[in-house]
Amino acid sequence: MKNSSTICALSTSSGTGGMAVIRVSGSEAFEITDKIFRPVKAVPVVEQPAYTLSYGKIIKGDEPLDDVVVSVFRSPHSFTGEDTVEISCHGSVYIQQEILKLLIEKGCQPAKPGEFTQRAFLNGKMDLSQAEAVADVIASSSAASHRLAMNQMRGGFSKELQHLRSRLLHFVSLIELELDFGEEDVEFADRSQLILLADDIQVIIARLAHSFSVGNVLKNGVPVVIVGETNAGKSTLLNLLLNDDKAIVSEIHGTTRDAIEDIINIHGITFRFIDTAGIRDTNDEIEKIGIDRTFRKIDQASIIIWMIDTTHFNKEIEYIADKIIPKTKDKKLIIVFNKIDKISPEEQLILEEEFLPHVPAERIYLSAKYKKNTEKLEKALLKAANLPELNTNDVIISNLRHYEALTKALDAVERVTTGLKTNLSGDFIAQDIRECMHYLGEINGEITTDEVLGNIFKSFCIGK
Amino acid sequence: MKNSSTICALSTSSGTGGMAVIRVSGSEAFEITDKIFRPVKAVPVVEQPAYTLSYGKIIKGDEPLDDVVVSVFRSPHSFTGEDTVEISCHGSVYIQQEILKLLIEKGCQPAKPGEFTQRAFLNGKMDLSQAEAVADVIASSSAASHRLAMNQMRGGFSKELQHLRSRLLHFVSLIELELDFGEEDVEFADRSQLILLADDIQVIIARLAHSFSVGNVLKNGVPVVIVGETNAGKSTLLNLLLNDDKAIVSEIHGTTRDAIEDIINIHGITFRFIDTAGIRDTNDEIEKIGIDRTFRKIDQASIIIWMIDTTHFNKEIEYIADKIIPKTKDKKLIIVFNKIDKISPEEQLILEEEFLPHVPAERIYLSAKYKKNTEKLEKALLKAANLPELNTNDVIISNLRHYEALTKALDAVERVTTGLKTNLSGDFIAQDIRECMHYLGEINGEITTDEVLGNIFKSFCIGK
Repeated sequence: MKNSSTICALSTSSGTGGMAVIRVSGSEAFEITDKIFRPVKAVPVVEQPAYTLSYGKIIKGDEPLDDVVVSVFRSPHSFTGEDTVEISCHGSVYIQQEILKLLIEKGCQPAKPGEFTQRAFLNGKMDLSQAEAVADVIASSSAASHRLAMNQMRGGFSKELQHLRSRLLHFVSLIELELDFGEEDVEFADRSQLILLADDIQVIIARLAHSFSVGNVLKNGVPVVIVGETNAGKSTLLNLLLNDDKAIVSEIHGTTRDAIEDIINIHGITFRFIDTAGIRDTNDEIEKIGIDRTFRKIDQASIIIWMIDTTHFNKEIEYIADKIIPKTKDKKLIIVFNKIDKISPEEQLILEEEFLPHVPAERIYLSAKYKKNTEKLEKALLKAANLPELNTNDVIISNLRHYEALTKALDAVERVTTGLKTNLSGDFIAQDIRECMHYLGEINGEITTDEVLGNIFKSFCIGK
Repeated sequence: MKNSSTICALSTSSGTGGMAVIRVSGSEAFEITDKIFRPVKAVPVVEQPAYTLSYGKIIKGDEPLDDVVVSVFRSPHSFTGEDTVEISCHGSVYIQQEILKLLIEKGCQPAKPGEFTQRAFLNGKMDLSQAEAVADVIASSSAASHRLAMNQMRGGFSKELQHLRSRLLHFVSLIELELDFGEEDVEFADRSQLILLADDIQVIIARLAHSFSVGNVLKNGVPVVIVGETNAGKSTLLNLLLNDDKAIVSEIHGTTRDAIEDIINIHGITFRFIDTAGIRDTNDEIEKIGIDRTFRKIDQASIIIWMIDTTHFNKEIEYIADKIIPKTKDKKLIIVFNKIDKISPEEQLILEEEFLPHVPAERIYLSAKYKKNTEKLEKALLKAANLPELNTNDVIISNLRHYEALTKALDAVERVTTGLKTNLSGDFIAQDIRECMHYLGEINGEITTDEVLGNIFKSFCIGK
């Protein structure tokens, strides 16, 4: 499976910067670099010791193209496990392109998305779940999702999988030993002991599989929808959370999602604000479609923020209440009363006592203008998200592919338990154990196909 | 002028990438890095030899934040001349921010725009014109502008300036020697020899100052305006030049310019297409304002491309001709007849012979659809740009500040020549020579003020 070509790509973010780094990896990384690099100290890269830097010029024809620093990593002590050179150049797009062109001219192949990481996997530097975590580390935008990805990249999940597989291997060897001596009617493995073992493994796999619901939310953010009449202040609210300086905003260009969403981090947890249209009771057909869509989007959220302009109660209130209240069974509702600076304490008291008193909801009395009670809103969001505190070593699944494999492994191990309890033939039980091992092996890449690898790495950025 | 604080910044382009580099520079760069970095080999950065790499973890509290490679540069052998560390981390925005936060927590100052380069200047690693060229190298988007900036960064201009200043110093010493012995009426310096010397220096400074017209165009692009009736195909033409694959397109967010412009490189030369509205003879007042603006923009261009849809001659032709033809005295005109695939060879012949035969213009008969004669258009643009072939060692001024200083230096040296010819007192001549030296010294930073430095470096990006 090893790849003999030498690949190159820009590894830093594209665009202009103070500097940029171009990575070259493969058996000819040093020789190719030497064709375009003139080090000040006149020691060619091929003779440079590992883990050293060399300052010099990149040459295009007879002309100096740039002053660069070259980092030398020797196989197997590099990210990919191959000989690797990193060229730190000035960060102009022109220079980046010209150096890449020169490298390709001298024999490099342009790297495909994720090809450096794929090589790291193929060369045994990491297992497949660790390789996948590299992309997650890069995409992480909150403390929680970062911790999750880092733990996976550093092999936390891999250890858990290895342990499971070795227990399953032991298990299947007991069963198969029994089969070998089957005709002599010897029972090497005590069935009740085996049932305990299978139960134990089942519990672990189930815990991993179920952790996906938390992992997915940590990775992709807690889905929140803000509903309210047209001018209730959705953007005001978002800006308020952003301006609080604890927040980072970014855009997610949806691959599976259909719209650009606002991502806000609150105390290390990502909240994903699903874009919706303002609601009002209207006869305009087009607007009605937009409003229907808003209500459908509520179904994607786990938290509903209902914004109410306390200075401006109107007929939309009832209309919205009818739509939202039925959903509070399986979602958290936060009612935000905005502009409380404009009403009297008496009026607020009436609101507190009389506004839908039987609807289960957190109620926040906010003044966006004077930034009053923003912290209470943040606390309410964190409480509604209901996420467990994570430790560095907790293994939480956040990858859909892993989840699907774990679900199949869980199915198989459940059949094992049932089979043992119903005195099923050892043949069938062994087959189910092997199936369970197969699915676990798919996660860390012990069992894989080009198609699976292709699917995994095509979503990586080029240069990683 | 040396700065004792240790600074840090993201040096690669902002945003998510495979990897990112954070630069730390200053007397405590190693000590501060050691507070957050746990190298695998357990050798602290402060004990690492120069020009080596160290692999390890960045630690936040007790938790691993990222796996990084640290590059060590020891004073004075670094870009800034100070002890410097470059931390290569995974390219997530989250990690970049967290590492910067940790560095600042442990004693770093966030670097101001261009502060690394400013330190390189203050520590004598480069003169001021070289420091300015660093920003130009990063901003270059064509072979020509890149070569210009690289030559300046590598000190081509600095050598020329040093040479001029040493000649002026020799000159002024001759004059001042004469002054010292003035009462004895000794003439140490032969005035006619001095006039030759002054003339020679004047020629050199004039050549440098005049090179700005070329340098400015090479740096900022040849300004081109496309005019034509509303649907004559400005965007078709731009796309055609782009699709030809020799071109790179980008956007310039104007600081001095008022609009986003299309930048296209043709054979290493940048052309800057000034955005204009389509022209038609209209009574709509708003549209008229737009069209007036288009005609005013023609004045900013050195090349006018007039696009004509050959299948659709109408009254706009005359209207446009009236506006354009008076401008062909000091600008180059290229008339592009588009859609020639739609007309017969006979019709084209008539066009060639009868369309404004006395107007000096390059005429291109184009089929945008069939990509016919695109190369002829490119050649016409290059010819109209009328730029000299540049060699690696040509010194061309492209910086407005240098141009202004050279213009003042030229004034001063002209006064010297006149003074010598009119037998002006040596006192005054010496003063003019010193003034000339002063302005040249401003260019390479031998004479500078905090205000000048502030103005230069504030336009740099942070991290450079």
